[in-house]
Amino acid sequence: MISVHSQPRSAAAAERDQQAPFLAVQKKLRRQRLDALLVSQPENRRYVSGYTANDTSVAESAGFLLVPARGTPMLLTDFRYQLQAASEAGGFEVLLYRRGLLGLLKKLLANRRVKRLGFEGHYMLYSAATQLKKVLAGHGVEAVPVTGMVESLRLKKNRAEIEKIQKAVQLNEKIFQEVYATLRPGQTERQVAFAIERAMHENGADGPAFETIVAGGPNGALPHAVPTDRALQKGEPVVIDMGTRLNGYCSDMTRTVVLGRPDDRTVELFRLVRKAQLAGMAAVRAGIACSRADKAARDIIRRAGLGSRFGHGLGHGVGLAVHEAPSLNRHSSKKLMEGMVVTVEPGVYLPGWGGIRLENMVVVRKNGCDNLNADTTFLDL
Amino acid sequence: MISVHSQPRSAAAAERDQQAPFLAVQKKLRRQRLDALLVSQPENRRYVSGYTANDTSVAESAGFLLVPARGTPMLLTDFRYQLQAASEAGGFEVLLYRRGLLGLLKKLLANRRVKRLGFEGHYMLYSAATQLKKVLAGHGVEAVPVTGMVESLRLKKNRAEIEKIQKAVQLNEKIFQEVYATLRPGQTERQVAFAIERAMHENGADGPAFETIVAGGPNGALPHAVPTDRALQKGEPVVIDMGTRLNGYCSDMTRTVVLGRPDDRTVELFRLVRKAQLAGMAAVRAGIACSRADKAARDIIRRAGLGSRFGHGLGHGVGLAVHEAPSLNRHSSKKLMEGMVVTVEPGVYLPGWGGIRLENMVVVRKNGCDNLNADTTFLDL
Repeated sequence: MISVHSQPRSAAAAERDQQAPFLAVQKKLRRQRLDALLVSQPENRRYVSGYTANDTSVAESAGFLLVPARGTPMLLTDFRYQLQAASEAGGFEVLLYRRGLLGLLKKLLANRRVKRLGFEGHYMLYSAATQLKKVLAGHGVEAVPVTGMVESLRLKKNRAEIEKIQKAVQLNEKIFQEVYATLRPGQTERQVAFAIERAMHENGADGPAFETIVAGGPNGALPHAVPTDRALQKGEPVVIDMGTRLNGYCSDMTRTVVLGRPDDRTVELFRLVRKAQLAGMAAVRAGIACSRADKAARDIIRRAGLGSRFGHGLGHGVGLAVHEAPSLNRHSSKKLMEGMVVTVEPGVYLPGWGGIRLENMVVVRKNGCDNLNADTTFLDL
Repeated sequence: MISVHSQPRSAAAAERDQQAPFLAVQKKLRRQRLDALLVSQPENRRYVSGYTANDTSVAESAGFLLVPARGTPMLLTDFRYQLQAASEAGGFEVLLYRRGLLGLLKKLLANRRVKRLGFEGHYMLYSAATQLKKVLAGHGVEAVPVTGMVESLRLKKNRAEIEKIQKAVQLNEKIFQEVYATLRPGQTERQVAFAIERAMHENGADGPAFETIVAGGPNGALPHAVPTDRALQKGEPVVIDMGTRLNGYCSDMTRTVVLGRPDDRTVELFRLVRKAQLAGMAAVRAGIACSRADKAARDIIRRAGLGSRFGHGLGHGVGLAVHEAPSLNRHSSKKLMEGMVVTVEPGVYLPGWGGIRLENMVVVRKNGCDNLNADTTFLDL
């Protein structure tokens, strides 16, 4: 049902994979008649420069890239990150600011005769961007919000990225199996979630890609449940949604498991969700609208009269960020492209009873998709 | 040296502590001639409503508060958070949006004849805020960026908050001691950091307030070091900077420890930093400029010829956020106020050698401060 094929790679494609991402940014800048781009979004920063530091929060940046349309790109940060920046950001000139970005930026832009500077309006706070625009305008520089310039490069994963994602998926599955083997009724959701985190640590992961969800019985009716002190019960569905980050790249998998014997209703709903998932995976291929993959899975659940119980989209892109473009939902007319990595995760949620969700990750291919998940922990169907 | 005194509370003060924070927001709104405030910042949202959900990221909100200048405040979220919102946000009307905030917001503002809506420009992305302004302008509503309206309420902690912070500090110290007792040369920084996280889990914490720092030997020269696989060595300084979150409130403590015998240089630098810390704590009291507390500690380090090796500010506020106002640094002319909770954390950082940092938390009082830390793990001086 799901096409799995490893493609022979052309020399040109292999070379493309090697090319420094900042060169692609520079090409886009020249096309859009911008003199430079200021990169603030952490995954974009990492993607373009290799610099792996994380921001403490959106208001506390670990640094910015300043990529001119031509010439050497720069990494601007403060002294706390100096050593890490210098060792990681190959090909970048590392420059330090003492009292925030603006002072240094003004100087650099003047030296480089920048008149139009792009900035990431979707990852700069309104107050910071407003100040940036104002201060730069005073120096004859127009700050122009741009959206998706780096993200558009991140949409399609190259071979090296897919290998990294595959490894993150494999590690995630190994960890799931390790913990699954130790599950017993009476353990609390928090205990299980922490056992997963511990296994991530012991297996050399960067860490969790997001807050692990372990939601037993009625708690499974919340798609974004936070683990509680509720003990797992025999026979109830337990939604486990977990992601391991490895070398920066994320994985994301959901299984719904039952300790002991599931009742008929659980089995029935499980079969329905699994059927929807397989239909979703079967629909995924390059060239179709994201909404069409969503519809393929949703139709199965709708026909069973539970359309209103599947209240979220079918999936989302995964890469350096665990949630990134594209979004697979009812409203997205964007087209799937070869090399995108997306989740396929239908679910049904019944308040008071619980939920069933199943999630795999797939690579979009020309005529179908490659399932990155080998795990087959599905209720015996 | 540090004044410790428990103050008798007046009935009026006790009542003030009990007052719903949204009433204080409403008062500020009326004073600033705003018809409503849209709260997007997660700690502000929690402070005002009691709703504890976390945002997945700045671009994926768990909900917004809409506080009108008069009448019932509202919590706007999506179906994933419906049950949690309803159970936690006492006194708030919970309303759901299906496809993002804007559609619902337009309707609510029209019904309530809102003409001027404040929004948190320091916690809304530029692209989102720009769209908000544009869409609302089309409906005759002016969206006005406001800064610090809720933060200003959070600056001074009331008695109940200080009790919560004190408990988070006590738990943090207990966990530090548990792990400190098991430290041995040969353990890696990552292992120690994870032992701390495990102890937080086992002791019922919400979780770490920030990424734990364990930095041995030369790694200690990076104030924001990320734990590595480097093994701890006998005799070297190991910087441990950790924070436990409990009931939403944060703690933040740094100790620099040595396994085995420290050499003379370590002892000398340790004494210097401790002396600077005590001078900083002795300077803290209501009414002085934040820069003056910073200077009191910095002068000690500067006089020893190491001024340039203390490259960050003396401290920061702590509450629902681990980094919040006020900032204690060279440039801050803001005044300390009674009831603020701040860190006092001088350090010296010698590239290639390592670092020493010591951090306590104090409550600012009229004539001094209360040290919230009881831990005395300081090199024998």
